[in-house]
Amino acid sequence: MPAYTSINSEILSKIKEAVGTDAVIQDPEKLIEFGKDAAEDAHIPDLVVEATSARQIQKLLRLANRHCFPVTPRGLGTGLAGGSVPLFGGVLLSLAKMNRILAIEQDNLIAVVEPGVVTLDLQNAVKEKGLFYPPDPASLDTCSIGGNAATNAGGPACVKYGTTRDYILGLEAVLPSGEIIKAGVRTRKGVVGYDLRHLLLGSEGTLGVLTKLILKLIPLPQAITTMVAFFPKLTSAMESVTAMLIRGHVPCAVEFLDDRCLEITKDMLPFKEAQSAKAMLIIETDGVQDVIERQMEAIGEICLECSATDVIMAPDSLKRARIWEIRRAVSLRIEERFPLFLHEDVVVPIGKIAELVGGLRGLEEMYGMNVYSYGHAGDGNIHVNITAEDPKNRDRIEEGIKDLLRKVLSIGGTISGEHGIGIAKKRFLSMELSAESIRIQKAIKDIFDPNQILNPGKIFE
Amino acid sequence: MPAYTSINSEILSKIKEAVGTDAVIQDPEKLIEFGKDAAEDAHIPDLVVEATSARQIQKLLRLANRHCFPVTPRGLGTGLAGGSVPLFGGVLLSLAKMNRILAIEQDNLIAVVEPGVVTLDLQNAVKEKGLFYPPDPASLDTCSIGGNAATNAGGPACVKYGTTRDYILGLEAVLPSGEIIKAGVRTRKGVVGYDLRHLLLGSEGTLGVLTKLILKLIPLPQAITTMVAFFPKLTSAMESVTAMLIRGHVPCAVEFLDDRCLEITKDMLPFKEAQSAKAMLIIETDGVQDVIERQMEAIGEICLECSATDVIMAPDSLKRARIWEIRRAVSLRIEERFPLFLHEDVVVPIGKIAELVGGLRGLEEMYGMNVYSYGHAGDGNIHVNITAEDPKNRDRIEEGIKDLLRKVLSIGGTISGEHGIGIAKKRFLSMELSAESIRIQKAIKDIFDPNQILNPGKIFE
Repeated sequence: MPAYTSINSEILSKIKEAVGTDAVIQDPEKLIEFGKDAAEDAHIPDLVVEATSARQIQKLLRLANRHCFPVTPRGLGTGLAGGSVPLFGGVLLSLAKMNRILAIEQDNLIAVVEPGVVTLDLQNAVKEKGLFYPPDPASLDTCSIGGNAATNAGGPACVKYGTTRDYILGLEAVLPSGEIIKAGVRTRKGVVGYDLRHLLLGSEGTLGVLTKLILKLIPLPQAITTMVAFFPKLTSAMESVTAMLIRGHVPCAVEFLDDRCLEITKDMLPFKEAQSAKAMLIIETDGVQDVIERQMEAIGEICLECSATDVIMAPDSLKRARIWEIRRAVSLRIEERFPLFLHEDVVVPIGKIAELVGGLRGLEEMYGMNVYSYGHAGDGNIHVNITAEDPKNRDRIEEGIKDLLRKVLSIGGTISGEHGIGIAKKRFLSMELSAESIRIQKAIKDIFDPNQILNPGKIFE
Repeated sequence: MPAYTSINSEILSKIKEAVGTDAVIQDPEKLIEFGKDAAEDAHIPDLVVEATSARQIQKLLRLANRHCFPVTPRGLGTGLAGGSVPLFGGVLLSLAKMNRILAIEQDNLIAVVEPGVVTLDLQNAVKEKGLFYPPDPASLDTCSIGGNAATNAGGPACVKYGTTRDYILGLEAVLPSGEIIKAGVRTRKGVVGYDLRHLLLGSEGTLGVLTKLILKLIPLPQAITTMVAFFPKLTSAMESVTAMLIRGHVPCAVEFLDDRCLEITKDMLPFKEAQSAKAMLIIETDGVQDVIERQMEAIGEICLECSATDVIMAPDSLKRARIWEIRRAVSLRIEERFPLFLHEDVVVPIGKIAELVGGLRGLEEMYGMNVYSYGHAGDGNIHVNITAEDPKNRDRIEEGIKDLLRKVLSIGGTISGEHGIGIAKKRFLSMELSAESIRIQKAIKDIFDPNQILNPGKIFE
């Protein structure tokens, strides 16, 4: 990293001149809030710039190059890997106020949005026009599309619909140099030049600041239906997941909770059947009403074949809301219970989930930790939540995590499915990527950002 | 470009030592065949290396760096933009013999293949296991998966299923340096580091040689059904396309032929209704039998609402095969008729197809050309075939093409949807991409290939 200049009064006044005084926040309490995300502790920026236009960002980044101060872009701060945390201080660039839906083009099945739009707001707005934007990270009512794009956020819908990167056809970004470029297209297809669109997506705000996104929309499914299934063991639940997929039933969500997660959420679950269960699946299908009903029946039969003890079809809407509330709140419940809480976000090939989760008990004993697993059974993305009663145990647990990640990689998995690397996982990066791959990635970073002013200290050690 | 060394006897013997004498082809007649693709004239390489392993390619590329000769990778030569044509001679690296399907993992819904596998062979092999690999370029029975990946090939299925890049989860590539890297994952999700996978996909063999591909598979749809609709004008046909999509009916193919294309294929079409029609749609839906039947009825009604004169449901399998044969053969028919034939591959937002195609008649008069349009109405990808009776007219027609591309770009389109840039379209690249975007792309090329030994002269002027 270069030796960054601290933001003195001279630079401050230049920033204010460039972006407008109204866009600058210096209130110390607010600086703390902007300095953290949903998992990582705060690093306090020198100031916050709340941008409302690409032009302001362009001016800010040009100043940053001239005076060598770091700029860290941030959506709505719901990330879980510290990607938006201003590790080296400097300017925290908030995109929260660039939150306009610029267009919903029904004929072209696209939407054009600024990065600060809340994901759920976009989903609701397109729904009114009979259209659907599928990506659904757990924080969808509080996270931003721009943050989703920067991290390539996933969610339960991935099993049927893919992740954020599959729905961003094109984009506008301000590069660290201050140049504004377009990448990708406004169309369904496009193969002109290298794929800078995908290079920017998932780059966690290190290669450019996303200022406009062109989203692919699809027709809104007519109906959705839910099923809950309880199992005497997790392997049976996972067998039913692979069986349903192979037999051609692709739900729009297949979530699971292991016995530990069930244990701490049973009191909230509106099903007496949960009491003795060791694993739960939440399954949803969407499409034409009678088709998804028949499909759900077939899926229910598959679950029963795979030893499900109870299959509860189409719980009423109150219960359905409750299920999802619990599914989304489970990590908070775990966090409340343990002084030490580290969440991993691994993915394994679908057929290997049971093998991975089955092996976790061995790790627990070896490293003195308690592991809570839940997540996206339909796409192999498991949130492995590692906890311990004693925070002093951290070093040993760190070894346990490395052992877990080695196991994940050995069975063809990846160390992050949807959270990204940020600062939380960069010490593990070289476990997955070769030295040559990292060398090329750093060289690409240097092309975009020779002075290392944009979001320094992320992804790479 | 550097001054390439010609392949003298010393270098030749080193190549033979590196890759094995059996892998080297020097027969002049075969060299001509390997020097062209399906559209561009031959540039004759000095020799062909038919690789059977990544290790051979590694050795070859290291020699190329040491002695400064160009290496041009080639799948099965069905490209339409000259991406695999060895513009500067040197070594033509054929991947045709790396054609093993290494694994079809039913539980994990993936396949692992070498690049030379014929796309249709892969489709058939996974079909036997109840799985589906959707990408379907028109040449699917003669093209290779590796070539599809290098160009991000599309096809009719894009409207529902996306293109090749959506089905390549991970890959192995030999970089120009000779380093072998992996990019992407074997899983449904993955967000570790920059997206080198998508950077390599669609880079037309200029950033690396793809040696292994990990493909995403989905369950095989139970059934497929076809419909043909005839319209009195093209705008009506296009209105029906947007209407069916907005109303939630997403076919797995929506192809169109304009009046000109109908004119030259009428004699082959097994429908008397074609005689007076000015536009034809071929529509297919796949999924659960009774659902797609009902869906097709709804689509048929939409077509009739939009002035279709005839809607022919579920033609028998002979007729269906005939329709697709004609759809795939139309460009050959055009080519046979005219001494001058240039095929463009533009994409516009779905709702803009009629506007674009409607404007083509004006261009015809202005530039003395005849335009035949057909293609993928469902995703806006139109093959605009520009022909003239007099080949001397080429300069004027070139102006006409530029005018067409300007129009495409002005309505939010792109100049290439699935063929790529190669050599055929590089003179138009700067119409779509900004100078800064091209500068970054060239800088990325320099990281991967500082000596410009891999597939020189492509994409960029």
